[in-house]
Amino acid sequence: MDTVNIAAKLAQIGDHWNPRIIGEVNDFQVKAVKLRGAFDWHHHVEEDELFLVVKGTLTMNFRDRTATVGPGEFIVVPHGVEHQPVAEQEVEILLFERATTLNTGTERTARTREQLERL
Amino acid sequence: MDTVNIAAKLAQIGDHWNPRIIGEVNDFQVKAVKLRGAFDWHHHVEEDELFLVVKGTLTMNFRDRTATVGPGEFIVVPHGVEHQPVAEQEVEILLFERATTLNTGTERTARTREQLERL
Repeated sequence: MDTVNIAAKLAQIGDHWNPRIIGEVNDFQVKAVKLRGAFDWHHHVEEDELFLVVKGTLTMNFRDRTATVGPGEFIVVPHGVEHQPVAEQEVEILLFERATTLNTGTERTARTREQLERL
Repeated sequence: MDTVNIAAKLAQIGDHWNPRIIGEVNDFQVKAVKLRGAFDWHHHVEEDELFLVVKGTLTMNFRDRTATVGPGEFIVVPHGVEHQPVAEQEVEILLFERATTLNTGTERTARTREQLERL
């Protein structure tokens, strides 16, 4: 029941596409992560995924359109929907999603992160 | 899959202690709400509750201590834990919690809000 300062958690992160757990709400987690560059296209079979931008501008590519998410904005990607997060410049975000959510979706790749660190 | 601007949603709210749904993530909801004054002591039997402060300073009273939550900070109140949110001045927050979460916890009072509006 400690107060969590989001910027202070993000300041501890020095790499990209490597989510850290900074909060837990029942079976959901809050993850802090820095993004830079283009991630792989993927989808999640069961989990919806909320991206809340703290700093920078996130581009979310879908197969039929593109969304832009700036600071103080969020987007929810429903399960089953293919998406590709792109950060042309560094972006700092929070993810709100089920603890079971794998960052690369249905594929395990070199970018898959499991057993996430808690900050 | 639209981008949601949090400040724009909060700007539509003219009352207090009346959460609006601004996002859904599986069985969880993101709610926007303005607070002013002291709410009733309550707890939730099953639902943890995340309070993320956008503007102002939230005081969260527990039976044995008090936490302060400012802009860019959040606190998670675990299920079963009695708490009293207090906003000495107006506070704007997001709640992230299961859709089943009743604002007054185990009691239904004049402050209970059900069938929440979607903004």
